[in-house]
Amino acid sequence: MSKKYVDLETLKYILYDIHKLENLLSRERFQEHDLESLDMFIDSVKEFSDRELYPYFQEMDATPAYHKDGTVIVHEQVQKVMHQSGEMGIIAACFDYEDGGLQMPISAFQAAVYIMDAANNHLPGYPSLTLGAAELIIEFGNQNLKDAYVPNMLSGVWGGTMCLTEPQAGSSLSDIVTKATPTDKGYYKITGQKIFISGGDYKDAKNIVHLVLARIEGAPKGTKGISLFVVPKNRITEDGSLEYNDVMTVADFQKMGQKGYCTTHLGFGDKDDCRGWLVGTAHKGLAQMFLMMNGARIAVGRGAAAIAMAAYRTSLQYANERPQGRKLSSDGKKNPSEKQSLIIEHPDVRRMLLLQKAIVEGSLSLVFLASKYQDILTTANSAEEKEKYHLLLEMIIPIVKTYPSEAGAESVDNGLQVLGGYGFCTDFTLQQYYRDIRISALYEGTTGIQSQDLLGRKVPMQNGKALELLSAEIVKTIIAATNDDNLKPYATALGEKLELAKKVIGKLMPFAMKGNYERYLADANLFMEYMSIVVLGWLWLEMAVDATNKLEDKNRRYSTTFYESKIHTMKFYFKYEIPKTNALAESLMSDEEVTIKTDKEYIL
Amino acid sequence: MSKKYVDLETLKYILYDIHKLENLLSRERFQEHDLESLDMFIDSVKEFSDRELYPYFQEMDATPAYHKDGTVIVHEQVQKVMHQSGEMGIIAACFDYEDGGLQMPISAFQAAVYIMDAANNHLPGYPSLTLGAAELIIEFGNQNLKDAYVPNMLSGVWGGTMCLTEPQAGSSLSDIVTKATPTDKGYYKITGQKIFISGGDYKDAKNIVHLVLARIEGAPKGTKGISLFVVPKNRITEDGSLEYNDVMTVADFQKMGQKGYCTTHLGFGDKDDCRGWLVGTAHKGLAQMFLMMNGARIAVGRGAAAIAMAAYRTSLQYANERPQGRKLSSDGKKNPSEKQSLIIEHPDVRRMLLLQKAIVEGSLSLVFLASKYQDILTTANSAEEKEKYHLLLEMIIPIVKTYPSEAGAESVDNGLQVLGGYGFCTDFTLQQYYRDIRISALYEGTTGIQSQDLLGRKVPMQNGKALELLSAEIVKTIIAATNDDNLKPYATALGEKLELAKKVIGKLMPFAMKGNYERYLADANLFMEYMSIVVLGWLWLEMAVDATNKLEDKNRRYSTTFYESKIHTMKFYFKYEIPKTNALAESLMSDEEVTIKTDKEYIL
Repeated sequence: MSKKYVDLETLKYILYDIHKLENLLSRERFQEHDLESLDMFIDSVKEFSDRELYPYFQEMDATPAYHKDGTVIVHEQVQKVMHQSGEMGIIAACFDYEDGGLQMPISAFQAAVYIMDAANNHLPGYPSLTLGAAELIIEFGNQNLKDAYVPNMLSGVWGGTMCLTEPQAGSSLSDIVTKATPTDKGYYKITGQKIFISGGDYKDAKNIVHLVLARIEGAPKGTKGISLFVVPKNRITEDGSLEYNDVMTVADFQKMGQKGYCTTHLGFGDKDDCRGWLVGTAHKGLAQMFLMMNGARIAVGRGAAAIAMAAYRTSLQYANERPQGRKLSSDGKKNPSEKQSLIIEHPDVRRMLLLQKAIVEGSLSLVFLASKYQDILTTANSAEEKEKYHLLLEMIIPIVKTYPSEAGAESVDNGLQVLGGYGFCTDFTLQQYYRDIRISALYEGTTGIQSQDLLGRKVPMQNGKALELLSAEIVKTIIAATNDDNLKPYATALGEKLELAKKVIGKLMPFAMKGNYERYLADANLFMEYMSIVVLGWLWLEMAVDATNKLEDKNRRYSTTFYESKIHTMKFYFKYEIPKTNALAESLMSDEEVTIKTDKEYIL
Repeated sequence: MSKKYVDLETLKYILYDIHKLENLLSRERFQEHDLESLDMFIDSVKEFSDRELYPYFQEMDATPAYHKDGTVIVHEQVQKVMHQSGEMGIIAACFDYEDGGLQMPISAFQAAVYIMDAANNHLPGYPSLTLGAAELIIEFGNQNLKDAYVPNMLSGVWGGTMCLTEPQAGSSLSDIVTKATPTDKGYYKITGQKIFISGGDYKDAKNIVHLVLARIEGAPKGTKGISLFVVPKNRITEDGSLEYNDVMTVADFQKMGQKGYCTTHLGFGDKDDCRGWLVGTAHKGLAQMFLMMNGARIAVGRGAAAIAMAAYRTSLQYANERPQGRKLSSDGKKNPSEKQSLIIEHPDVRRMLLLQKAIVEGSLSLVFLASKYQDILTTANSAEEKEKYHLLLEMIIPIVKTYPSEAGAESVDNGLQVLGGYGFCTDFTLQQYYRDIRISALYEGTTGIQSQDLLGRKVPMQNGKALELLSAEIVKTIIAATNDDNLKPYATALGEKLELAKKVIGKLMPFAMKGNYERYLADANLFMEYMSIVVLGWLWLEMAVDATNKLEDKNRRYSTTFYESKIHTMKFYFKYEIPKTNALAESLMSDEEVTIKTDKEYIL
């Protein structure tokens, strides 16, 4: 099997040259890192992925995780990757030194896990969720909790999860009913059911540390009465040994894709002996959880972007090797005596490949953009800087979760189509990428939820300040591109789309002002799509500006073709994707209300 | 399991009221049929599908057909459905009485198989391909061939296939190398390999009759040297018994979906003992096969439309039963003390449901449109009528193959999303529909091939006459709608899109005139999407016109809500889908050439 599941040149180009990782390294937090050491870290993760992840990609699909005798049997590679992720410092990468971390920039960490995701998306979720759970304990837990749980999590010896969803509540977290009953012994008794818990249990794990949202008896209704608890599968006794904590794996969910990443249904306190420890402040659990959710949402976008990358590389290789058909000659006919063309020579195949490239590399830039914002926010030197990058990050989170998930699925769909009938056959991996990536638009908040977040919370945030800041960033690139005659037309087009976005908001906002939020948000998904195209157009224009400059630079790192291909892909994006904003704006500004329930019977 | 996999009311409404099946019945060919008998036939197929197809839908996915000991093991329901399709006259439905057929209108037959497709898309391919193969023998074969093969095929005792694709040729049929060597005994010796042969073999079948494209020794290169042969798995000896004909099942293809419909790799003449009988004229095989291909392409569109229907009905039922979340009140908040809403009340869920409804019912109307054209063509009273409906049908074929396949997949994707995380789980059928429908854009000519056919062959046909005829049909509906004040804005919008289509063609055609066919066809896929949206807009407007009339008719068959829902869905289509034509036109008319290979290195 080819190991060309990721284009490492492009990854490093976007991280180093476009998002300028080096600029971050002057910040005090990162002073012990330099570009060379981070580059080596990334290379070592690629080598690790080649060896321990990619070879098991098809195997883990063929042998799904499954529930048996109250636990879940997973592929043996899970435990191996957990341990090695601990040993290599992948789980601990971004935490403070004092918490056992390496104070690495989040950007470099994301690059590493992106490579793992591209190699085998069934595996990185285990260490990734573990670090998310550890992050919550570190951020909000007391010293006892930290000492008890964090070291074994960062080393990959124990797993971690986040438990939000319940059968009756789904995406509606205000309906959570898992109960926490106070005791006089410092812990709460936990009872309830949680579903869709990724990495929720596996046989070989010594312990799993669940971060559980529950309601303390007598708490207010709704989201303001939810608290956060550490609920380990095995609790730590006074002598330090482990004792079963009445956390039962009731069942698992068999899925269409990502079958090696187990999804469980957990029961807490079936025998009334499940103990949980409050993390942070009572009733503030949801806000606390959402700190971690931002990271989880970026992780979903990153994973989707990586799957789309792997699918693109696979279809590109096929297109470069498969002869089929011939070019049309000037009489519109084909000459059967001529040698067959490679399918990459056919314009329609090139269109499908370039669409993938545009989505895949654009998504990668989007992931690094969000990571950069996180890094700057974490190390902000002033309240002003902190405020600015907090708002930029808030604005980008729903987009970085959604665009790679939705457009990434479209990208894989095109990759599958490049292979023709073979794309549908299980001997080829395209169909697996197609199935695997489909979960991305669902978990950690569906596309619908993200879109409501973008239009309903982020756009109106501080009277539109977050959007203003993002627009200002986009305008910087537009100005830079306007100075180059070749890029000017694209800069102008992007500027127009940004203006049109403001018109769309101007059309919608009065509905919110008048209290008609349902109407305001009815087409939030279309707005999401609109804004995503604008943001991606910006990121591609940014790449084209840089590539144009590099082409004049004698000391450039990559080939002429490399930089030209970035400019070419930008042009592709502006020809085929940017025009879609017009259609979206037309729908968004239409006065026809067809999706809002009326008093009439349902007419579906 | 619910049997609401198809909306029979809508099916009959579109067939009887919109496409006016009754008007066909006055034609001589159909004189022994009336609306009542056809209605009973459709109902009986629904009952048959409830009993023999739908219950095995998930089971056939869980137990795929597989290659073993030189044959293919399929679900036992395959043989049962083949036999009963024979007994019920489904296979023979549309043939002449003298060939053992029932002279049923193709429209009624398509309605019946659509129901079967919706119930379980893994099964109807077996009888459906058998009738296609029989059609070729009936149309082009001599009396000996007809007598020998057709009766056992129409009764469902023998299966039939069509064998086009070869490993080295893929979609490029001019590269077929399967060889036919003449003998002095009336048959040819056949040697070669065919892949992707649907229904190519199954253990319980007494015989399989392959219709094979091959090249007679010394034939011209390219598509003009291809002939058509009957090559049975078992040949008929002089005493009427069956004898193995050296047709070997080399392997099968395991697929992402439609797993119960076997896909085989066949080897002909491995022991130099495979006999084939020429059908029709030597070297005319491809043209002959394409007569059947038209039917096969409509069948693919019909199947995709039906899968999308079943997925829509499933997600609709879920949305009507699943409580989750609450409506936003006028302060933009939700009141957690309020009862949960059903998810069908959320505008975003309604948008996903209405999108499905628009695609599903529009696709169904498109299938019946193509069938109606076939029926009129078959029974044409004049050369003029024949010419007109031949051209209309040619124009619609690539669209009816492609739109339900592509938009249908998008429809199912939305259905899956309605179920949230459950949509991705194998306990629910949405993920199966999602996998199954994906083959539709691949087989019987990929979307790329169909799009080249539409823009490259059908649009320029007879100097644009086919397109002119189609436009004239569309204009009739526009005029009818213009007479109603409520419908006039939609009529106007559709008229504009039709005009814009002409502009797009006006922009592209000069490239063809100058011999630059590659440029002319580079964005054929986008043109396909453009034309499909216009055609669907037309079909929805047609439905809205009818529904508007019916609402004033006291003797109407269905409820007020029924007709209102059709008008409502038309409005949905015009708000969300029609605007996409603007974006497509912008891309199509752009002068930027980014997908045509240049002398530069590949820059992907």
